[in-house]
Amino acid sequence: MKNNLLADIKENFAQWYQDVVYHAKLSAGCSVKGCMVVLPYGYSLWEKIQSVMNEKIKKQGAQNMAFPLLIPYSYFEKEKDHVEGFAPEVALVTSAGGKKLEEPLVVRPTSEVIIHEYFKNAISSWRDLPLKVNQWCSVVRWEKRPRPFLRTTEFWWQEGHTAHATYQEAYDQAREMIEEYRSFSLEYLAIPVIVGEKPRDERFAGAAITWTFEGVMQDGKALQMGTSHLLGEGFVDAIGISFQDAEMKIKKPSLTSWGITTRLIGAIIMVHGDQKGLVIPPYIASIVLTVVPIYKNEEEKGKVFSILRLLEETLCKIGVSFSVDLREEVTPGSKFNDIDLQGVPFRIDLGVRDICEEHFTFYRRDISQKIKHPISLLYDQASLSIFLEKEKNAMQKRMYEKALQFRDSHMAFLSSIGDYVVLSEESEEFDYIENREKNFIYIAYWCQRDYHKIKEKHLTVRCIILKEEEVYFREIIKDRDCVCFVHGKNNCDGKIKVCVVGKCY
Amino acid sequence: MKNNLLADIKENFAQWYQDVVYHAKLSAGCSVKGCMVVLPYGYSLWEKIQSVMNEKIKKQGAQNMAFPLLIPYSYFEKEKDHVEGFAPEVALVTSAGGKKLEEPLVVRPTSEVIIHEYFKNAISSWRDLPLKVNQWCSVVRWEKRPRPFLRTTEFWWQEGHTAHATYQEAYDQAREMIEEYRSFSLEYLAIPVIVGEKPRDERFAGAAITWTFEGVMQDGKALQMGTSHLLGEGFVDAIGISFQDAEMKIKKPSLTSWGITTRLIGAIIMVHGDQKGLVIPPYIASIVLTVVPIYKNEEEKGKVFSILRLLEETLCKIGVSFSVDLREEVTPGSKFNDIDLQGVPFRIDLGVRDICEEHFTFYRRDISQKIKHPISLLYDQASLSIFLEKEKNAMQKRMYEKALQFRDSHMAFLSSIGDYVVLSEESEEFDYIENREKNFIYIAYWCQRDYHKIKEKHLTVRCIILKEEEVYFREIIKDRDCVCFVHGKNNCDGKIKVCVVGKCY
Repeated sequence: MKNNLLADIKENFAQWYQDVVYHAKLSAGCSVKGCMVVLPYGYSLWEKIQSVMNEKIKKQGAQNMAFPLLIPYSYFEKEKDHVEGFAPEVALVTSAGGKKLEEPLVVRPTSEVIIHEYFKNAISSWRDLPLKVNQWCSVVRWEKRPRPFLRTTEFWWQEGHTAHATYQEAYDQAREMIEEYRSFSLEYLAIPVIVGEKPRDERFAGAAITWTFEGVMQDGKALQMGTSHLLGEGFVDAIGISFQDAEMKIKKPSLTSWGITTRLIGAIIMVHGDQKGLVIPPYIASIVLTVVPIYKNEEEKGKVFSILRLLEETLCKIGVSFSVDLREEVTPGSKFNDIDLQGVPFRIDLGVRDICEEHFTFYRRDISQKIKHPISLLYDQASLSIFLEKEKNAMQKRMYEKALQFRDSHMAFLSSIGDYVVLSEESEEFDYIENREKNFIYIAYWCQRDYHKIKEKHLTVRCIILKEEEVYFREIIKDRDCVCFVHGKNNCDGKIKVCVVGKCY
Repeated sequence: MKNNLLADIKENFAQWYQDVVYHAKLSAGCSVKGCMVVLPYGYSLWEKIQSVMNEKIKKQGAQNMAFPLLIPYSYFEKEKDHVEGFAPEVALVTSAGGKKLEEPLVVRPTSEVIIHEYFKNAISSWRDLPLKVNQWCSVVRWEKRPRPFLRTTEFWWQEGHTAHATYQEAYDQAREMIEEYRSFSLEYLAIPVIVGEKPRDERFAGAAITWTFEGVMQDGKALQMGTSHLLGEGFVDAIGISFQDAEMKIKKPSLTSWGITTRLIGAIIMVHGDQKGLVIPPYIASIVLTVVPIYKNEEEKGKVFSILRLLEETLCKIGVSFSVDLREEVTPGSKFNDIDLQGVPFRIDLGVRDICEEHFTFYRRDISQKIKHPISLLYDQASLSIFLEKEKNAMQKRMYEKALQFRDSHMAFLSSIGDYVVLSEESEEFDYIENREKNFIYIAYWCQRDYHKIKEKHLTVRCIILKEEEVYFREIIKDRDCVCFVHGKNNCDGKIKVCVVGKCY
């Protein structure tokens, strides 16, 4: 059944997205330009993401802290690439406590400089290293074209910052975090991602290397889902961080930073959603199961509720996060639509007829499938627990495989001149390829030069694929032509790398 | 053993406080005026407070959300008492995204107006009520005389906001929250508090009633530990919030708001700390137990570590939050000092001599007491779990009773003219009473007039004690004279109330 609240997902994906955000009650607009209110259901998803990632971050040895929201401009300015990158989008506090400030304060767009000030004070010897901290907070980056969860002036995130005695250790840390993010995305969000390095032009302001993990949305656009940076020496030099090594020599530490944001909620919507609304992967769902009691009169209600009470008891004991839709003024059909819209993984319908036949109906959101099971299952804690665990595992697997199949079938491998003529200056050919349903994301070779030629086609290089990752994309290994090369044979030098090229959010 | 890092707690309480905050690594200063960095240990205490309070707030039916940090000034201005109260301490964003803003944005000092805008959109019928939301975030109020945790320009808090169909329901909600806070303070922080209404001059800007819970610190000053407000109609009128009741009549809802802050960490320090440093109540400790292995050579280390590994295994199974002090470069004595300084409730010393005698040493931080127990206890999960549970309960009780005894023995009951001559204009008498060690906090009658007379003595009325609460302070029920009355017999009218009067933070 089509949900009339939502625009057609195939015809108008952008409107469908806005409709889902609004009708599934994830976020709401407000009088503050470019900002959003995160509604309880949206926030519960963020809390779930936080609880999983918080454990992973602790395992990395990073400790949670809180740093000031406001940063003196002179501090912010210290690293020249950093200020250059962020200055156009910062918000400035110029008066406070009824007086004009001598120096403006930046509302943090990210916290490198203020955390590096702490590093400077906390690090003196090699014994203080590695130093790893993490902060959950919101940051502000002025946004001219806001879209809820994807681009908002204020967004919520986690920012990890580390300092290490050696470059190699910092490099490994930044790489390890991107792998943590990748596995989180695969295992919890059921979203396959491509991990790689950002091209120079797309790096974090002040980073030597930025790694990213990129997802492919159902409209074929890529979404940068999070990043991990090996910072350049600029920060260490600007702030003046140093330590004494075991041989009493003064050395500079190497730094990293890494983060994921509320944007991941946008990714969940755009990768898994369908015409009925959200579909939340069970491992990250804040409500795994909703129970709908169905009855027509008080007598029927009595029967249904006697079963419902027993079921509630069993579910509480199992420790499943569930809800019961007790609304009296809403028909079961409307309840089904609402529960579909919010993407609750499973639904149990308790109807009188089923109960008389010793059955209940179990519904799987991702494939809209109803199955009858014997009602005795609802009272048996051990059996119901195993049943739900199996169902969760199976749905999580189905959703990941569906997303992977979608992504891989919408990729084109630009392995010959004939393929990448798409990127030539002849626009007809470009349009032809662009509209082929299969070709959302291109895996291609790039010589890391003339990025503007690719950008002119409204395409971006999402990332330079890691060597380890190339194996997955075997088909392209055979050839070696560069996407920025247009007519005739490739004449790029030896620094050609395998890249993901595509449109993006 | 005295900790030389700390100033004398009796002679210089203020310096002692600063020393504890610094040396126990709770917070650090930073380049941002009036702000603090919350260090991992301080933040872990806040996380513990959050986890307990979050459950209590959910049980109240409030859902977590996130609201914008920046509030348009025109919105902030809508409620006249509110803007009047907060305007002197707000920080203003006047330019952003490289341009001067047409209208300045206020960095939230509290979120009433922006949450009420959400209420306006979310509430249309009586079915939408009550509406209860909560937000964990930081807020900014410009502070001229900052003190870590007690008064900082930025602090972290929880702010709950509710809307109700009737005045009575809102009144009950605000009262219930102050009771939740009271029980949290008693049960978790081991801090006895006095609950009451703030006098008119001390109310939250825009509130009809502000309830507070006040603790008494070891220097005799009162600390406002949190508040709950029944808001006045100003907000509802200014924002224009209304709903249709069951009879289709348009009505105004009644609103509340309530919060606790990182200031509670300051309360823990000042109520329970001693000359050795912090003492953390076990129910709120982020580390309940630290194990210190003691050995002189590799052979001894082998023996100690074989026991240590077994103990670690048992503690993990029990689910106790513990740490092991493995530092090689630090003597056991210094470790003891550090663990004392951070106020870890319990310590287990594993020394070779003890182990040979089949013993281990168990240390209770609050009373600096060492007891030997048979080493077999460390391997027996069930017995160790019961043992630690009993120890936690007993320490929690001891700490609460000690704090209660301190508070009650440092109160004076101003029940006759002779007593409250302390508040007369004759300064010698005032000083005399003030320096009496017992008389930190006064329980007194007050006619709710001429508050300035009390303030002139650098005293404040902390709260008007609730009727229910007066029973505890039986001794004063017998008389009825007013503290703002100075020479001669009381001539105040009938509105005399029982108050807590004292110096404060």
